[in-house]
Amino acid sequence: MGEFSLIDIIRQRCASSRSDVVLGIGDDAALVEVPPGNELVICTDTLVAGVHFPVDTSAFDIGWKALAVNLSDLAAMGATPAWALLALTLPKADADFVRALADGFSALASVHDVALVGGDTTQGPLSISVTVHGFVPKGQALRRSGAQVGDRVFVSGTLGDAAAALHLLESEHLQRAVGSPDAGLLVRLNRPQARLACGIALRTLANACIDVSDGLLADLGHVAHASGVAIEIDQWKLPASSALQSCCTSALRAQLQLTGGDDYELAFTVPAERIDAMNDALTGVGCAITCIGRVVEGEGVRVLDSVGNEITPPRGGWEHFS
Amino acid sequence: MGEFSLIDIIRQRCASSRSDVVLGIGDDAALVEVPPGNELVICTDTLVAGVHFPVDTSAFDIGWKALAVNLSDLAAMGATPAWALLALTLPKADADFVRALADGFSALASVHDVALVGGDTTQGPLSISVTVHGFVPKGQALRRSGAQVGDRVFVSGTLGDAAAALHLLESEHLQRAVGSPDAGLLVRLNRPQARLACGIALRTLANACIDVSDGLLADLGHVAHASGVAIEIDQWKLPASSALQSCCTSALRAQLQLTGGDDYELAFTVPAERIDAMNDALTGVGCAITCIGRVVEGEGVRVLDSVGNEITPPRGGWEHFS
Repeated sequence: MGEFSLIDIIRQRCASSRSDVVLGIGDDAALVEVPPGNELVICTDTLVAGVHFPVDTSAFDIGWKALAVNLSDLAAMGATPAWALLALTLPKADADFVRALADGFSALASVHDVALVGGDTTQGPLSISVTVHGFVPKGQALRRSGAQVGDRVFVSGTLGDAAAALHLLESEHLQRAVGSPDAGLLVRLNRPQARLACGIALRTLANACIDVSDGLLADLGHVAHASGVAIEIDQWKLPASSALQSCCTSALRAQLQLTGGDDYELAFTVPAERIDAMNDALTGVGCAITCIGRVVEGEGVRVLDSVGNEITPPRGGWEHFS
Repeated sequence: MGEFSLIDIIRQRCASSRSDVVLGIGDDAALVEVPPGNELVICTDTLVAGVHFPVDTSAFDIGWKALAVNLSDLAAMGATPAWALLALTLPKADADFVRALADGFSALASVHDVALVGGDTTQGPLSISVTVHGFVPKGQALRRSGAQVGDRVFVSGTLGDAAAALHLLESEHLQRAVGSPDAGLLVRLNRPQARLACGIALRTLANACIDVSDGLLADLGHVAHASGVAIEIDQWKLPASSALQSCCTSALRAQLQLTGGDDYELAFTVPAERIDAMNDALTGVGCAITCIGRVVEGEGVRVLDSVGNEITPPRGGWEHFS
């Protein structure tokens, strides 16, 4: 089984028919066309076995997640996704593994009409780097740096589910039965959904946006730093799934929601006068949002309890090499 | 030393000032602009320690080569390079290593005005994935699939130097003294030059083009297959450096030149009536080319000796997992 056979497996399973792909997999490079009036949005993220996913994660889920974490970055920019490249490093040429991985990648790519246009397979310890490309109308990309004092802070979906799944896995308390609350948490860990429609709806409405991948506190810290402001979070407002509420103490829940990471929700700030327009824009998007705080003068992120007293948050944020 | 400090090191050392970069490193994704009338050219390649470079390769050379092998793919398409992303996986947060790697990457990026616009650092076994982007005027990209019966086959530069260096390294016969012929071979292995100016000059002139990364026979095999033709190579015409001529027997030299890989030269086919125009276009590019064969009917690649008899070539081509 050579490199070219593995590439053929991937190509067959990730076929797409975007008209803006002039030349896909199979030459020295791909050729694509960016629609006029748009800026190109590009990002890359690598998943390493044992670091970014448990070593026993299924190949399907690895393929799905490698694309999802990248699409989440596009969502945070308000971009419409278009093309991806997949650089796959494998210990050995395992065709079944590659088939399942390509199926997971392709399952999510199909949902968002993402074409796989290139890639590379190499031999080495398991890791997977994906680069994704999207568009945004010129000048409309959402950034981390635009938060203004007075903005309200919102988050999409619920926080802490993926971190709870990881916690339960590590403590060997996860109940895997289909339909169990824990199974729902595990889906959040292994098959994250990028909030692309939400990001697109927030163009021209949100002042700042980021995806919550390293933990809410760490990621809002980036927004505060880039924008030159402080952010106050009302901890009691953080949206939690019923599965999360039923699986852990309130102290653990707070820690998972504030610092757990792997949420792939959007956190964004919106000026008060645009909140009605935002709610209109989000109608039909199918993405619940929750107001969790506000932008104030100063620096850093503060967490408040229900009577407005500052809470010392748990140690913050997933940071590699920390 | 956290991920963000490593990214800061890379960002500082890879600063650029391209006007088409709207937003570089530091947000969820980069924002760039493709000039009107151009197609975007994208490719990605991963280098794994011990597979794509000897484990004792310097960090500077790793950074250089990771970009070079990708730029070589752009060269093969006739693209003008523009932007790169760097996904770096490191066993530990070694700031000195990252500084040197970024310096090597940046040294080559500066030569070709490539802006580093994004990336990712993760913990794991050493590997480096680079994604590069370039432009080509609409419809002018060089492909593997356009070779026509009657075309002449050319190659840029010389073949076999990098493979000779690797051979000498592995047999512990490499003479590292500065200025020695072997030192010149080692430079070809560790700091390849992508033939970007040559590829740009060949737009609208070459019928097919590929970069020679996996060995001449293997890569011309891709051209023959994609174009539905056969290619005949005159082995005695293959261009060799004086260092290569002095370091090995003619049999070994033939093997290194035909199957060695890591050349990062361009192999391309040009119809006879465009050869004068090609020579004009290459004037001033500073890239010697050599006619090494012709495109004929049939399939596959045949190697001929100086009286036109077919030679059985050595086992062919670098292929991962083979």
